[in-house]
Amino acid sequence: MVKLNENYQKLQGSYLFSQIAKKVNAYAAQNPDRTIIRLGIGDVTRPLTHSVISALHSAVDEMADEKTFRGYAPDLGYDFLRHAVCENDYRARGCNIYEDEIFISDGAKPDSGNIQEIFDDDNVVGVCDPVYPVYVDSNVMAGRCGDFDEKTGRYDRIVYMPCTAENGFVPELPQKRCDIIYLCFPNNPTGAVIRKEELQKWVDHANANGSVIIFDAAYEAYIKDPGVPHSIYECSGARECAIELHSFSKNAGFTGLRLGYAVVPKDLVRDGVSLNSLWARRHATKYNGAPYIVQRAGEAVYSEAGKAEIRALVDYYMENAAVILSGLKKAGYTVSGGTDSPYIWLKTPDDMSSWKFFDQLLENAGVVGTPGVGFGACGEGYFRLTAFGSHENTAKAVERICAL
Amino acid sequence: MVKLNENYQKLQGSYLFSQIAKKVNAYAAQNPDRTIIRLGIGDVTRPLTHSVISALHSAVDEMADEKTFRGYAPDLGYDFLRHAVCENDYRARGCNIYEDEIFISDGAKPDSGNIQEIFDDDNVVGVCDPVYPVYVDSNVMAGRCGDFDEKTGRYDRIVYMPCTAENGFVPELPQKRCDIIYLCFPNNPTGAVIRKEELQKWVDHANANGSVIIFDAAYEAYIKDPGVPHSIYECSGARECAIELHSFSKNAGFTGLRLGYAVVPKDLVRDGVSLNSLWARRHATKYNGAPYIVQRAGEAVYSEAGKAEIRALVDYYMENAAVILSGLKKAGYTVSGGTDSPYIWLKTPDDMSSWKFFDQLLENAGVVGTPGVGFGACGEGYFRLTAFGSHENTAKAVERICAL
Repeated sequence: MVKLNENYQKLQGSYLFSQIAKKVNAYAAQNPDRTIIRLGIGDVTRPLTHSVISALHSAVDEMADEKTFRGYAPDLGYDFLRHAVCENDYRARGCNIYEDEIFISDGAKPDSGNIQEIFDDDNVVGVCDPVYPVYVDSNVMAGRCGDFDEKTGRYDRIVYMPCTAENGFVPELPQKRCDIIYLCFPNNPTGAVIRKEELQKWVDHANANGSVIIFDAAYEAYIKDPGVPHSIYECSGARECAIELHSFSKNAGFTGLRLGYAVVPKDLVRDGVSLNSLWARRHATKYNGAPYIVQRAGEAVYSEAGKAEIRALVDYYMENAAVILSGLKKAGYTVSGGTDSPYIWLKTPDDMSSWKFFDQLLENAGVVGTPGVGFGACGEGYFRLTAFGSHENTAKAVERICAL
Repeated sequence: MVKLNENYQKLQGSYLFSQIAKKVNAYAAQNPDRTIIRLGIGDVTRPLTHSVISALHSAVDEMADEKTFRGYAPDLGYDFLRHAVCENDYRARGCNIYEDEIFISDGAKPDSGNIQEIFDDDNVVGVCDPVYPVYVDSNVMAGRCGDFDEKTGRYDRIVYMPCTAENGFVPELPQKRCDIIYLCFPNNPTGAVIRKEELQKWVDHANANGSVIIFDAAYEAYIKDPGVPHSIYECSGARECAIELHSFSKNAGFTGLRLGYAVVPKDLVRDGVSLNSLWARRHATKYNGAPYIVQRAGEAVYSEAGKAEIRALVDYYMENAAVILSGLKKAGYTVSGGTDSPYIWLKTPDDMSSWKFFDQLLENAGVVGTPGVGFGACGEGYFRLTAFGSHENTAKAVERICAL
């Protein structure tokens, strides 16, 4: 008889955001007249920009004509997009990355869930605590994480790297062996950033230990501080130890369009095997390319007009972040993040539990946020708000929270 | 130090179609004046239909307006598409399938590569020989297949079910234990179909043994014979043992648009665990939904106009199939498939090897096909041609082949 993947039974509850959606839907059904403001899930609300829309329409028209119709895309992405990514996100920043090291995909979430497949199941995984759940759950499914301990709220084979108020939500180098280290800066969920000299220490650590860093740069467009790197490849030696993941969701609003990319440098080699070739094989076998029309939309993000539109989008959301930050501070909350990141991380009042604060905020203010504990044990007593709402809703939400 | 997934080293050569593409590109570079006709990879050539194009443009316009903009799609697909699939592909055919058993994805290739994840690595996999390489390769990557034996051209832990001229390219029930059985009808690559009473035997076999059938129905739109089932759920008991995979690529020409779905019935339970819930969890954790605009395009396929357009598309390609079949028969080739399927399976002349015939056809006729041996040991001495070209190119290709 067929046996199922038993590792799935070790997953905790449902996927965090599905769980929140269920709670909110139940509340909405019971309170049909109440306007709910959603600052929970990191989903954008502004429409796609003019350049993107125009590129989509043109590409759709191409698909209507047999002379310009495109079937299967190249597995690893169209050259026009790999070129635009390489020039704009790397070469323009002085990073030594080549086009054939860029793998176009349908987003940073699938990439961050799938990337662990090219590693042996025996590796030890290190993650920040709190952490984006996909890094942990995808490794649990692969059997790398051991058992879940209800008391600690942790898996016994993962190395957790606490991100606390004490360390400014930037973890210390792990004391225990970590073969695969997940880092995300600007951080989801805390909104913390890492300075270049700090990130260099991680690169050096990984190179000294033969570890691989999975660096999630999904939020790099929000960085304003010039001392904060946009890419791990700004650090020397990163080509030998790091994979970087990117998204078009948070800068260009592609959450519903789906586009991202992974960078796997050819210098990243272990036991004589190139990780670039493994990831290429994974793509060729289990993926079939991002839609042509969406890749053309991605290309438009890098046009001069596209870049200006993206800057305006980011500025729009960062105005929200400023409103949330100043409002909460005035109301006496302890807050961080929100200056180089669309996420605001707040301490719940009176050491209230994260889920209790979630319920209170939903029921009394009609505002949806994300309970910090949903991202890990160190997130208990914290709460995440996002800057991705409209100006109007964000102002209203802050007003309601302050009136609590 | 990090260890890599060693199973990747057991993969044979590069992914078949990447290998063909390389050979063809090399030939094209050396023979810039030669027109190459590609009847190799199963990629379509006709443009998207009017209803689909129109749905895409409308959906793009929705994304440009903040009132109608859509961010993250539901993980499992929009209700409007799950509803259309359920009504048209199942309810209309008398199959007892429900909307929450349908999982929208970016295609049958990713689904057929990813579905093995929900099973234990210890299961024994059964595949047809010849077979679509993704079923095998995705299981090799997971470590289910043992070692590759150069002599037999087979993995020592896979159960191969020969599809030969003797059995009309429909395999006999396996004699050895198979926990997971992959079936694809109309078949890729042979173009063979399975009659309902034959398929019922497989369902009964799976239920008797606790096996799970992964039924790939990507080519069902090409079925004309009323005795040939479009879905495995036309067989009784299939809800307890079968997962079905579908594509919008071959009926509606979405190869470059990317859309498909998997059906995982709630009655499919092993050891008290629902496979529907495992696949839902996999989607929620590692996938982020198909693009809204593409799901609207999928919905348009099920409109009355859309259905008529799809029928015309399928008819167009089936005219090619008829031209290939009759031309090759006249030229003395032994051929099969091509009546309820877009694939024509031909025996190479004089027992020539598949790759030798590939080279000969490319060099002497400028026609690209797919070597049968690329699909498995039983494909040696066979060759696949597809009906997905234009009328003009298909006629020209047949002419060139007959002139050899």
